[in-house]
Amino acid sequence: MIYLDCAASTPIDPAVLVQLSNWQRDDFANPSSAHRLGRELESKLDDARKLFLSALRADPGDRFIFTASATESNNQAISTLDFVAGDRILYCPADHPSLVQPALAWEKKGVEVLPYRLLEGGEIDQDYLLSNVAHARMVLLTSVNAQSGNLHPVRELAAKIKVMNPRTLVHVDAAQSFGKFPHTICHIDSVTVSAHKMGGPKGIGGLFLKAGSRVKPLLFGGGQQGGTRSSTLPAPLMLAFASAFQISLDNMNERLAVVREKNKILRKKMKTEIPELLFPFSAQVTSPYILLFLHPQIPADVIMRHLEERDIFISSTSACSSKIKGENPVLTALNIDKKLYKFVSRLSFDTNLRDIDIDTFVGEFKAVVKELNFLVKNV
Amino acid sequence: MIYLDCAASTPIDPAVLVQLSNWQRDDFANPSSAHRLGRELESKLDDARKLFLSALRADPGDRFIFTASATESNNQAISTLDFVAGDRILYCPADHPSLVQPALAWEKKGVEVLPYRLLEGGEIDQDYLLSNVAHARMVLLTSVNAQSGNLHPVRELAAKIKVMNPRTLVHVDAAQSFGKFPHTICHIDSVTVSAHKMGGPKGIGGLFLKAGSRVKPLLFGGGQQGGTRSSTLPAPLMLAFASAFQISLDNMNERLAVVREKNKILRKKMKTEIPELLFPFSAQVTSPYILLFLHPQIPADVIMRHLEERDIFISSTSACSSKIKGENPVLTALNIDKKLYKFVSRLSFDTNLRDIDIDTFVGEFKAVVKELNFLVKNV
Repeated sequence: MIYLDCAASTPIDPAVLVQLSNWQRDDFANPSSAHRLGRELESKLDDARKLFLSALRADPGDRFIFTASATESNNQAISTLDFVAGDRILYCPADHPSLVQPALAWEKKGVEVLPYRLLEGGEIDQDYLLSNVAHARMVLLTSVNAQSGNLHPVRELAAKIKVMNPRTLVHVDAAQSFGKFPHTICHIDSVTVSAHKMGGPKGIGGLFLKAGSRVKPLLFGGGQQGGTRSSTLPAPLMLAFASAFQISLDNMNERLAVVREKNKILRKKMKTEIPELLFPFSAQVTSPYILLFLHPQIPADVIMRHLEERDIFISSTSACSSKIKGENPVLTALNIDKKLYKFVSRLSFDTNLRDIDIDTFVGEFKAVVKELNFLVKNV
Repeated sequence: MIYLDCAASTPIDPAVLVQLSNWQRDDFANPSSAHRLGRELESKLDDARKLFLSALRADPGDRFIFTASATESNNQAISTLDFVAGDRILYCPADHPSLVQPALAWEKKGVEVLPYRLLEGGEIDQDYLLSNVAHARMVLLTSVNAQSGNLHPVRELAAKIKVMNPRTLVHVDAAQSFGKFPHTICHIDSVTVSAHKMGGPKGIGGLFLKAGSRVKPLLFGGGQQGGTRSSTLPAPLMLAFASAFQISLDNMNERLAVVREKNKILRKKMKTEIPELLFPFSAQVTSPYILLFLHPQIPADVIMRHLEERDIFISSTSACSSKIKGENPVLTALNIDKKLYKFVSRLSFDTNLRDIDIDTFVGEFKAVVKELNFLVKNV
């Protein structure tokens, strides 16, 4: 199997899997129990929280809470704030729906929810964004776009935003970059992270909150995590997330170099073997973990289905928007021509992608294109 | 180790653990991905949903959605409805805070949130409850109280409520009874369940919704689970929950008989060896999986700490309220005298509790009481 859909979900790291299974077996107590089993587990979770906080160079008072998903983190960071009619939120329509939808929900309460634009090539139109910051209560940023792979300079942008308006809250969705690129919480008020995009298990995410954050709970109950997120603490998942993150941290630069090289080879081979392919987002401004391309005549879902018969798995669109029909606000915002929507494919991978897999993928893809030649001629 | 805190969290079933580890390794794809790996996984999850629905004898149109916890299920079932000023919600202050707090949050919007009473012995004061149903939009019930173990006749109560007022919504928190007692969704509008109270992993729960339910999403984003709960589907956890439930279903009656017998022996031995112990909630009206007792002179946390040194783990209070100081609304509602709060201990267990463990526990408890005799004399 050649799996090229890591941006949807990565395989779990084998070392993390062994640990997770042991924790599932041994650390079954409820970390909120007052007895020793509970206390020992709560202390392990404290260490996990400290790992996340120190990696983001957090200050005293900054918090890290575990959530069940990046979606929950984004919802909590946006929906629970006290915005009032007349406030302004800036968002990017190319971002994940768990950022966009909670933002748009504020419109019902009279909040102005203003989209900002991306330039041709997928970079943020900073002039446009910054010219609208003056009255903004919140700006929503994404560190790496899940579709195009565009790597946005969130820290620098946050710094500029804070200079223009220190009261503007900056929230960053880092689901596609956490564990892959260095992050800090500097100038940023809240950061969403996820385990299953970086070798951890599904069902666990996190939310960094700057000291003094007014983010409120989304879930009420037993008062776990300082009252900010009630629910029995799923200790095995939390510890597995921390472990996957530690492994990512320890290998970040090496992995980045390896994946960058793989991305380069992949682009080159694809372009050489199937010259009609288009790559609208350049390697210079994208994360090497994601590679979007278009075959301008064969629909992406046709390519996907022909490749899956050959045990190769790519994405014809992001998993989270696979149910969207017709309009595709993400691709529109990425400045992709509406006529080309159905031709957009995404490859996403990590260091597990071997050179021989690249050869096999490109070879099989070429065979598929040849097989589907009648489609090309019909256009 | 003798673990007597299963109501806080159970050890994971060994068979489920093996499956879960395999699913974590093999079924890593995102079930929302359009390719075959995603589709196959989504189909497995459909089977899991069907298992839950058929076990509760659901009708066509009834839904089961996976959540991250019973807390999330309770919050979603209560917080997302369209109540307006003047509506009435009936709740029991002895119930879990994830029921009580979302209910009380409605008070800010002018909803009348009315507590109903329990009789001496912990049973629901049905006359009182039913006399207030006429104008109630919603009644919150719990099938098994997490502290006292009281087993409430939720199905019969729901039927009576619906006769009096067919428009009244009935929500049941079944976290402590699901997989232990038969359940149906008959007469009930929504039911909260949890995996980690019945041999499944932590971090996964569920919510049954009767056809036509007006419960709305709490999390917005990729539109998973028919839009009712956005977030990447944590397939391994979902499948493990279904597997733990299937095992529970297959063995429900045998397990119930075994645990009933263990509960009987435990009560009898404790009473014989330490005659001063009080058992305010009788075996006739409680789940045998939970046994609350008081030593009227030695504080529960002192007992707990002395027992944990002997590798025996009991609860001095429910894990979810272990942070509560002073007032204890749950014990008040259970009609326990305020002076006795600090003496309340809870044992909770399953079929894994061996007869020799019961002997050891009672013997060690007796030794602890003897050791702490000076406390008794000082009272």
